[in-house]
Amino acid sequence: MTESRAPRPGIVGAGQLARMMVQAAIPLGLTPAVLATAPDESAALVAARSLIGPPTSLDALRSLAAVSDVVTFDHELVDAALLRRLEAEGHILRPSAAVMAVGQDKWFQRRELEQLGLPAPAFRPVPDLAAVEEFAATYGWPVVLKARRGGYDGRGVWVVHSPAGAAEVLVGARAAGTFMLAEEWIAIEREIAVLVARRPAGEAVTYPVVETVQRDGICHEVLAPAPIATGLADSARAFALHIAEALGVTGILAVEMFVTQAGTLVVNELAVRPHNSGHYSIEGCVTSQFENHLRAVLDWPLGASGLTAPAVVTANVLGAPQTGDLMSRLPDALALPGVHVHLYGKAARPGRKLGHVTVLGAVIAEARARAGRAAALLAGTGGAEGSEEAA
Amino acid sequence: MTESRAPRPGIVGAGQLARMMVQAAIPLGLTPAVLATAPDESAALVAARSLIGPPTSLDALRSLAAVSDVVTFDHELVDAALLRRLEAEGHILRPSAAVMAVGQDKWFQRRELEQLGLPAPAFRPVPDLAAVEEFAATYGWPVVLKARRGGYDGRGVWVVHSPAGAAEVLVGARAAGTFMLAEEWIAIEREIAVLVARRPAGEAVTYPVVETVQRDGICHEVLAPAPIATGLADSARAFALHIAEALGVTGILAVEMFVTQAGTLVVNELAVRPHNSGHYSIEGCVTSQFENHLRAVLDWPLGASGLTAPAVVTANVLGAPQTGDLMSRLPDALALPGVHVHLYGKAARPGRKLGHVTVLGAVIAEARARAGRAAALLAGTGGAEGSEEAA
Repeated sequence: MTESRAPRPGIVGAGQLARMMVQAAIPLGLTPAVLATAPDESAALVAARSLIGPPTSLDALRSLAAVSDVVTFDHELVDAALLRRLEAEGHILRPSAAVMAVGQDKWFQRRELEQLGLPAPAFRPVPDLAAVEEFAATYGWPVVLKARRGGYDGRGVWVVHSPAGAAEVLVGARAAGTFMLAEEWIAIEREIAVLVARRPAGEAVTYPVVETVQRDGICHEVLAPAPIATGLADSARAFALHIAEALGVTGILAVEMFVTQAGTLVVNELAVRPHNSGHYSIEGCVTSQFENHLRAVLDWPLGASGLTAPAVVTANVLGAPQTGDLMSRLPDALALPGVHVHLYGKAARPGRKLGHVTVLGAVIAEARARAGRAAALLAGTGGAEGSEEAA
Repeated sequence: MTESRAPRPGIVGAGQLARMMVQAAIPLGLTPAVLATAPDESAALVAARSLIGPPTSLDALRSLAAVSDVVTFDHELVDAALLRRLEAEGHILRPSAAVMAVGQDKWFQRRELEQLGLPAPAFRPVPDLAAVEEFAATYGWPVVLKARRGGYDGRGVWVVHSPAGAAEVLVGARAAGTFMLAEEWIAIEREIAVLVARRPAGEAVTYPVVETVQRDGICHEVLAPAPIATGLADSARAFALHIAEALGVTGILAVEMFVTQAGTLVVNELAVRPHNSGHYSIEGCVTSQFENHLRAVLDWPLGASGLTAPAVVTANVLGAPQTGDLMSRLPDALALPGVHVHLYGKAARPGRKLGHVTVLGAVIAEARARAGRAAALLAGTGGAEGSEEAA
């Protein structure tokens, strides 16, 4: 007659990552609370327990922590000082405030990677144009300029080819009060990503290496496994595991890397949360990144990360000017065989991630064509006959 | 900038079937409302939209229908007259009130099967002992006595071997006001089940045949595919599809059948909703019964029903006297490799279905051993070393 006493995870933020955590929580007998800024946010639409408040407010964070046994995150847009305060008040944060401070700050990330001796682009804080020109004198043009914080989906990253281009970006950054980094531009062959799930007790599980296909800095497709040599994939997984252990990450760590045109690996960015490059794992791996994130932050044994099919492709559904009401096109997408559709309940806006589609198959090219077709159908950018190219 | 206009399913009942529908709804961009009798019911714990009220109340049903574009069901315990009333008021019910009337009444089921000419046990309403004795004079002892309505999980079914045994059951039935049926007892080799998903437009998808392993009338394990000859499996699927079409089922129809010791098929019972015998489909089929139920009741294209592995086994987690707080044992179950745990958030009571565990594998025996071990661990009836036998 005993009532089951389930631990209570709380999630700061209510985007699609929180939404998919809420979904993964149900079979585990969990009911996470989400801290949303509005009741119509993606995860707030589906969570049984939502609190409304900004993640920048200590009071809002405290309200979430008060009803949670462990606090985790949908995004990094939280002041690390507030998180340290929550920890000082006795709340358990996973990942910790210290790890979140690294996750939300590209300068801190670069310094950590440098300390670990991992291959990464040269970098330097650039307070003014003179600093950019000095950096370019050593590493050449183009230079990659990055906002230290807050950038995502191509926002906050600029590739500049001249002092004039750099000056334009710096003017905008100064107006916004944004601290900037310069990074060495690298000639890349492809981008890849690796997820690690790690629990406080130390157990860690590394996911297969995937290729992320980006356009304008936004991930359009994820191909699993990445079409790279086994040795390179093994190194990528080893790098990601090393970073997770060195930083003491709990939950999911996503590591984005470049395969350079010289065939070497360079670590690009880190995210200390479930990641767009891991959505394929919902159907494509034995245990999804969302379930393993929950298991990790609760310090429960982790699930296996192996692929469930020889080829798994996820295509993001990105808002376009003509997207409009994508629910009206959902039946057309569901009519495509073997297509797993995930919608986030978000209003359509150009460039916004509204959902994703995953297809399992025998070979990447076929799965990619079908996933791309379904995603284009949903976004309103491809007709039933399909307009996107296959691999 | 258009807000997505998702259709709104409403679910009468908030047990584990509704809970798993709520989970399956999230990726489809849907937020079902559930009608729960209490806020701590299985699906009410996880649904973003819950209404509290008894399914026997027309007002409660109307409240649900008022916020739903289509009403569907977690269970059959709803007066069909109330459902006809809702339909008369313009609400869309899937399955329809007429189909629900058959689903909730074993006498109606038997008459439908008889009309369809499908093999089923002989049956007769038995108002008194004389009627049972007359039935036994034709079909012999033992006789199966069944409550016409409301029975499940072994409740409402008695196998009686003599007039004295029958008399005892009938006394209890009369005290409870229960209308009884007598059915021919059949020597069976095994029990099997087939699911069909069918949409109003007529499209239907039939799932693989599974074996259901029952003890004391409660399903303990589901083995997919059922270890039966292909010809027999094809017949079972054809029977199920025929029933779905003849009744005009919308949503999932589950058909339980016997394989007799003579190697023939006999149709036992129907359920016009997702079914315990189909939980394996969450990981074990391309499209789960819960997703296809939602797609079917929304008249959307159905997903493929093929198996995702050569062998899929689900073991139910059944409450035992020693079960207590099963969440405390969840980490032990998660430590078993490749085990998919589904908990229903229900308080432990002996015989109650508290969750299930699914394992995918190359052969049934190995998957069955692992699923059984995990389920026993969760129920508190098996140690970490395992106490249950394999197949």
